[in-house]
Amino acid sequence: MNNYKMTVQYDGTRYSGWQKQGNTENTIQGRLEQTLSALLGEDIQVIGAGRTDAGVHAKGQAANFKTEQRLAPEEFLPALNQILPGDLGVSRLVPASPRFHARLNAKQKTYRYTIHNSVIPDVFGRRYAYQLPDPLDTTDMEQAAHLLLGTHDFKGFSTGHTRKSTVRHLASLELSKTGSDVCLTYTGNGFLYNMVRILTGTLVEIGLGTRKAESILEVLDTGDRQKAGFTAPPQGLCLMEVIY
Amino acid sequence: MNNYKMTVQYDGTRYSGWQKQGNTENTIQGRLEQTLSALLGEDIQVIGAGRTDAGVHAKGQAANFKTEQRLAPEEFLPALNQILPGDLGVSRLVPASPRFHARLNAKQKTYRYTIHNSVIPDVFGRRYAYQLPDPLDTTDMEQAAHLLLGTHDFKGFSTGHTRKSTVRHLASLELSKTGSDVCLTYTGNGFLYNMVRILTGTLVEIGLGTRKAESILEVLDTGDRQKAGFTAPPQGLCLMEVIY
Repeated sequence: MNNYKMTVQYDGTRYSGWQKQGNTENTIQGRLEQTLSALLGEDIQVIGAGRTDAGVHAKGQAANFKTEQRLAPEEFLPALNQILPGDLGVSRLVPASPRFHARLNAKQKTYRYTIHNSVIPDVFGRRYAYQLPDPLDTTDMEQAAHLLLGTHDFKGFSTGHTRKSTVRHLASLELSKTGSDVCLTYTGNGFLYNMVRILTGTLVEIGLGTRKAESILEVLDTGDRQKAGFTAPPQGLCLMEVIY
Repeated sequence: MNNYKMTVQYDGTRYSGWQKQGNTENTIQGRLEQTLSALLGEDIQVIGAGRTDAGVHAKGQAANFKTEQRLAPEEFLPALNQILPGDLGVSRLVPASPRFHARLNAKQKTYRYTIHNSVIPDVFGRRYAYQLPDPLDTTDMEQAAHLLLGTHDFKGFSTGHTRKSTVRHLASLELSKTGSDVCLTYTGNGFLYNMVRILTGTLVEIGLGTRKAESILEVLDTGDRQKAGFTAPPQGLCLMEVIY
């Protein structure tokens, strides 16, 4: 079997997220498996690095699949993209070692959350940003962001139940401003369910002045979801890169 | 009466263009008049600088309207944007002299046409660019662009019939490349119906090598639409600025 690594981009607006959930749901994984299986005449299984939620986008999702055939990427890639819908594309396809596994081998992931912070709506970026008219104090947000760096139990910043460890290492959290856009870029070894969106919602409340930066510490200490901020909406979130 | 100048932005994808065409059509002008009339409780007429076609976008359309009321832009602008749909926004509202007319007073307009020139589709820009997988020779296109500069009868680069003059002055035509995007930026004192899209289609044929740069001269000489290139699709076109 030949193993291939793909970089996948998608506008998540009309999808029910990455992960296949039966035949009726419109998922990225399902759509890729369907298209690759039809092109290759084999039953193809696609393994993704991370399971993005409904409405979340990706510029650099990573995935792999195995096939009995040896592909010529420079010919196969254009053919694949021609069949895929316009809101889903494969930007890179390279041979991988037989043992490469997109999820298990991922070392770090980078997510970016974009907030359009203006009373003037962003007509062109509206599907890819959270529109927030009330002004954010980014100095307070940066101060709070520092408290999140490093290894912590992020249980309070996630939803759902898990018996597995909720300890993660947040390697960096950068705040940048471009025009009216405030971007929060998170890099870490892994992210819990809804973690980036709840961290963002909490930082937004700090930026709006309705919450203090120190409240972050209480959420980390107690692991209590109720003490954290709201879950920021999915359209602002994008998986930028998976590092191996 | 108080006269106000607006800068209008829109994603033209789902609109039948700028100009009102009766009550059933979904137009930018119609939607603005409807919203302003409802907000102000008066019958408001909106005058636009240029009539963009169905599917064409604007980042800097200019318009004016008159009202009996004196508006406080810093309060009125957010209220207006909150009511307008997400794909249509007013980015600026300023008082204008009573004689200001957005169409008659316009001196120059700048349009940009964006071509995504790659076998890898642009998932996020797909609604705002013409996707062209075959590689363009931009050196040939730049050479041809020079032939278009200045004052010419652009009749061959337009559709529809008019008894009015088809002479226009093209002040600049710049080609720029950013990643896989090729942008053609046109500034002139006026543009005929479909002129930017037909100029772009002709330059694309030159860039693909299916047409020679000199063929431009024959279209200018004869005024024959049949000798020009195809009409590039609307989604790549955006009205960037109106200069007064």
